Amino acid sequence: MSETYIIGTDLGGTTIKFGMMTEQGDLIEKWWIPTNLEDEGKKILPDIAASIETKLQEKQIERQQVKGVGLGIPGGVDENGMVKGAVNLGWKEWDVAAELEALLRLPVVCGNDANFAALGEQWKGAGDGARNMVLLTLGTGVGGGVIIDGKIVNGAHGAGGEVGHICVNPWETEPCNCGLCGCLEQYASATGLLRLAYRYCKKQESGTDLTGLTAKDIFDLVKSEEDSSMESVLSRQAAEDIVEEYCEILGRGMAMISATIDPEVFVLGGGVSGAGETLLSRVEKYYKKYAFYLCRETKIRLAELGNDAGIYGAAAGIVNSNGKKEHVIL
Amino acid sequence: MSETYIIGTDLGGTTIKFGMMTEQGDLIEKWWIPTNLEDEGKKILPDIAASIETKLQEKQIERQQVKGVGLGIPGGVDENGMVKGAVNLGWKEWDVAAELEALLRLPVVCGNDANFAALGEQWKGAGDGARNMVLLTLGTGVGGGVIIDGKIVNGAHGAGGEVGHICVNPWETEPCNCGLCGCLEQYASATGLLRLAYRYCKKQESGTDLTGLTAKDIFDLVKSEEDSSMESVLSRQAAEDIVEEYCEILGRGMAMISATIDPEVFVLGGGVSGAGETLLSRVEKYYKKYAFYLCRETKIRLAELGNDAGIYGAAAGIVNSNGKKEHVIL
Repeated sequence: MSETYIIGTDLGGTTIKFGMMTEQGDLIEKWWIPTNLEDEGKKILPDIAASIETKLQEKQIERQQVKGVGLGIPGGVDENGMVKGAVNLGWKEWDVAAELEALLRLPVVCGNDANFAALGEQWKGAGDGARNMVLLTLGTGVGGGVIIDGKIVNGAHGAGGEVGHICVNPWETEPCNCGLCGCLEQYASATGLLRLAYRYCKKQESGTDLTGLTAKDIFDLVKSEEDSSMESVLSRQAAEDIVEEYCEILGRGMAMISATIDPEVFVLGGGVSGAGETLLSRVEKYYKKYAFYLCRETKIRLAELGNDAGIYGAAAGIVNSNGKKEHVIL
Repeated sequence: MSETYIIGTDLGGTTIKFGMMTEQGDLIEKWWIPTNLEDEGKKILPDIAASIETKLQEKQIERQQVKGVGLGIPGGVDENGMVKGAVNLGWKEWDVAAELEALLRLPVVCGNDANFAALGEQWKGAGDGARNMVLLTLGTGVGGGVIIDGKIVNGAHGAGGEVGHICVNPWETEPCNCGLCGCLEQYASATGLLRLAYRYCKKQESGTDLTGLTAKDIFDLVKSEEDSSMESVLSRQAAEDIVEEYCEILGRGMAMISATIDPEVFVLGGGVSGAGETLLSRVEKYYKKYAFYLCRETKIRLAELGNDAGIYGAAAGIVNSNGKKEHVIL
């Protein structure tokens, strides 16, 4: 085989996902191993190196055929690829790329996992190659990645793409996990949707017990339309009102991003994006309502790569690093 | 003379300012001519060409010594330098650069004037060469320019840097000039400061007549400290409260920008920035209060180039265009 390959690696707190692909992004094989958090995460890099070695042998791929390994990390990574820390892994600041390069004898590029997910969607997913794109990951929190001129915006202090912490409600009194009050994440995450539901019921003085209710339940109820067989502690009207409020706040937050950088496309990912058209149509409506007149027609799309966005993005990190990593001894 | 020169031109609704400088940005000469708005602005480009011709002859500079002419325009300009329209000049969409190149037989680069002002401050002013910078122009409105990786972010629809239209108050009921409600511009412009003063007095039920009061008067009153000789319709305490509210809203708006792109430095320009340290110290305080924890230490500086930012930025537009305009016949 004379083809050249790249390996995208998505390092999470539970599993490490790998994807081997061509430079064009055609996936050859996906696999994963569990994340060993022992010894302050010291076993992670040797595990990654061993797993890649094994796969290369299995596929009979020579080291010279591998252009490099991209590694997405759940923590801060500066513009030079230096890891600033990853709490969930027990990692402090260190040069992860250099360490993994020494183990693997292959070029390594590190990046923040949410940023790499954005790069993945831009390269092979809903971003469809757009030079300017924003990914919003609507999960337990609200993460994001901003791509301008085809490149991730890490920011001067590693806060680029922290769009979950845009203040959308200056009068909020409950604090966000970050310590600020009124962050987009407090409303537009899955947790935020439940918070809106609790507040709605409290305001209605309905005394409804929402224990066990999930974000998916609320969206499913809206989708159910007149399906009277669906049972829920919430009424369909209540679910509809709550989802409208959720989408209004999200659409308004996206309009704020547009007034700063005016992306070509927004991509919505994370668990909540599983609500599909129910989410998309409402977010589009409110985005148009709140967007500056020049950028009312910005495209809004659902993420397409799901959990694979990270491995594609990490691989794209290698593709984009063209030349910069050539000093590495192969 | 064998030196190479560039000419920065800042086209306004009243005057056209020119600056001839070296490629390093050393200003050789500044001059200006009135803007002739007759015939839907058709006389503007011939006037600019004639003025530059005259100056070149006067300074005995050969055409071959001029690298190009940058032209800042008060209107929308897309990423390719195509003018999308400039209401104040009577201009519709047309290829201004091509027309002026034909008249001048010199390379021409067009850009939005606020964006060019940001580029000017980045190159030769308070931005100090920062690769990522945001300029906020606090004047009649709030304009802005976003620079990422050394380049202006025009945005997919020309709305890049329209930070005056970030929603900072979702509960505002009075509309902004743009039609939206709660825009940063409604509070953080000079006009916005007066609006805050009116609202303050209304809330206090003081019945104070604020006719003739200016934004500068309010800041001056705060600066006056215990100078009892200073007379105003407002009390010093009232002025202090109003300025605090102004700076709180502005600082919060800037924190929203940081959560998206995390610039290295914010530069405050426009008339209100004349308030200097009185403005800066308070904006810094509130920025730190509302910024995401990673980017609390972002630098905030006062603009340094004043009305010259536009000509420096237009010249920088030529410096940055390196190579792209070489097809032009000199």
